[in-house]
Amino acid sequence: MAQDIRIVTEAQLRQALPLDLAAVEAVEGAFAALAKGGVVMPPVMSMDLAAAHGEVDVKTAYIPGYDGFAIKVSPGFFDNPKLGLPSLNGLMVLFSARTGLVQALFLDNGYLTDLRTAAAGAVAARHLAPSRVTTAGVMGTGVQARLQIAAAHLVRPFARVLVWGRDLARAQACAADIARDLGVEARAEADPARLVRDSQLVVTTTPAKTPILRAEWLHPGLHITAMGADQAGKNEIQPTALAAADLYVCDRVSQCETLGELRSARASGDWTGATPPELGAVVLGRSPGRGSEDQVTIADLTGTGVQDTAIACHALPRLGDAGSVIRA
Amino acid sequence: MAQDIRIVTEAQLRQALPLDLAAVEAVEGAFAALAKGGVVMPPVMSMDLAAAHGEVDVKTAYIPGYDGFAIKVSPGFFDNPKLGLPSLNGLMVLFSARTGLVQALFLDNGYLTDLRTAAAGAVAARHLAPSRVTTAGVMGTGVQARLQIAAAHLVRPFARVLVWGRDLARAQACAADIARDLGVEARAEADPARLVRDSQLVVTTTPAKTPILRAEWLHPGLHITAMGADQAGKNEIQPTALAAADLYVCDRVSQCETLGELRSARASGDWTGATPPELGAVVLGRSPGRGSEDQVTIADLTGTGVQDTAIACHALPRLGDAGSVIRA
Repeated sequence: MAQDIRIVTEAQLRQALPLDLAAVEAVEGAFAALAKGGVVMPPVMSMDLAAAHGEVDVKTAYIPGYDGFAIKVSPGFFDNPKLGLPSLNGLMVLFSARTGLVQALFLDNGYLTDLRTAAAGAVAARHLAPSRVTTAGVMGTGVQARLQIAAAHLVRPFARVLVWGRDLARAQACAADIARDLGVEARAEADPARLVRDSQLVVTTTPAKTPILRAEWLHPGLHITAMGADQAGKNEIQPTALAAADLYVCDRVSQCETLGELRSARASGDWTGATPPELGAVVLGRSPGRGSEDQVTIADLTGTGVQDTAIACHALPRLGDAGSVIRA
Repeated sequence: MAQDIRIVTEAQLRQALPLDLAAVEAVEGAFAALAKGGVVMPPVMSMDLAAAHGEVDVKTAYIPGYDGFAIKVSPGFFDNPKLGLPSLNGLMVLFSARTGLVQALFLDNGYLTDLRTAAAGAVAARHLAPSRVTTAGVMGTGVQARLQIAAAHLVRPFARVLVWGRDLARAQACAADIARDLGVEARAEADPARLVRDSQLVVTTTPAKTPILRAEWLHPGLHITAMGADQAGKNEIQPTALAAADLYVCDRVSQCETLGELRSARASGDWTGATPPELGAVVLGRSPGRGSEDQVTIADLTGTGVQDTAIACHALPRLGDAGSVIRA
């Protein structure tokens, strides 16, 4: 029996789905669902294709009460730029949670991943950052540097942004984009210590394998979202910072201890404390969030399948007639 | 940067890709590649959706030297028949093995899985069945009962087929279909012991959780392909039969010991022998296949990601202009 499948391209998705508060709330709801229980989220399926200098990750999650569930495939082929192609690509498939039938194919080349990743940063900032943020700092100068700042700005409308990167010209370009897109003051900051000192909210968005943010830079009234580490081997935050903070929160503990900052801190012996709380529990108010304006908080985001299901379910009703329909 | 993606429906795939020797050889090549090494095939990603009476499996494999790799999603939602929908669905996505870009979407509702599963049965029969098969038996009466017999007939052109099922009327319907499709004599056989006794090749295709084929029925010159068990809990062949056979071969040992007949035989203590050989090693001649016409052989097929990649790569050049192309 054939069914109708909606097929939507990256350009159509970008048109219909901006990074806005509705997207943040969709992802926030997914974290809450994860904390409530009943979510089925298998470990990430991962293929390391050394011969092709590539890797492929597959993520999914079933969330009780949601109409659909997404399966997302994210290939990264790192010789692509030599061919004039982007390294990161991929698609999402949305299935009916009642029948398993394919409902939609989002040929998004990773756009929905960018969106749900940035939205998770906003969820962390909403629940953990000081209530008043005047300056936000971002470490890294790529797509997520821009999107994380845009997402955080939705929930903490800061007036100034500092951008640090290994390449000053790229940091300047990133700052110029942010200033234009958000209408805020933004500039490159060559000294990461100064960037952290002068910010109330810092997002780290790099693929660093050795820490770029040192524990000694922590100061009262700081929130850090570390979203770069998503693989064993990556590490942005000096491990001692996790225990030094008043509150350290994981998107998913089981992922953070294998792919995120918690992995490094466990490996170095710098995290010997209890199991950290998860972001969804903070969203639900089951675990405390920031307790006072002076606290130091850190959120460790590795990216979860519930975010993919949430953004795909968020997308479908917002697409109107976009895309094409194939009967298959 | 947008690329062209070919989108092909089940009807178009059925039209362009019959179950033929070319399909068998494509799958045979994949088993050979698996034995040669260098294949990257992560464990099956599996979601058990008890609340929806459903399950979802994701399989993939990267085969060195192949232009593409497939990721296959197979949902099974067992309340669908109440809604007039098939239980099994799904799709395959074919990616470039060089760039990771999506090349094709096969909206096949499981047809390519049916094809590559049947083709694996033919590969097993080609290398393990006696050279002369006059009667083939099949246990089970579903789609794979028909396709396994059609596939085996490509490599062992038997004249007669016996069909056993728990429901005699279904066995009769299955036999009638086989007789019509293959132009052979085919009839239902109510006694499974007699079916095995009178056959040189038996394929078991059921979701049985307790054995339907007993060890005492083994006889010289018999080959059995057990393809029903693909999950912990399923078991078609009495465990003592595995050790009693002269040769027992797995499609993939690591899967058979968790999902196939080997799991049951290990659990009951009836398989204490060495690690069984894999089908690919037999295809390559690295492990012995059938040694004489009198031997008893058993193949345990759980279904592997290399088969999916093989059938998807086999499909693409045979599709001509079938389907539509979307630039995404």
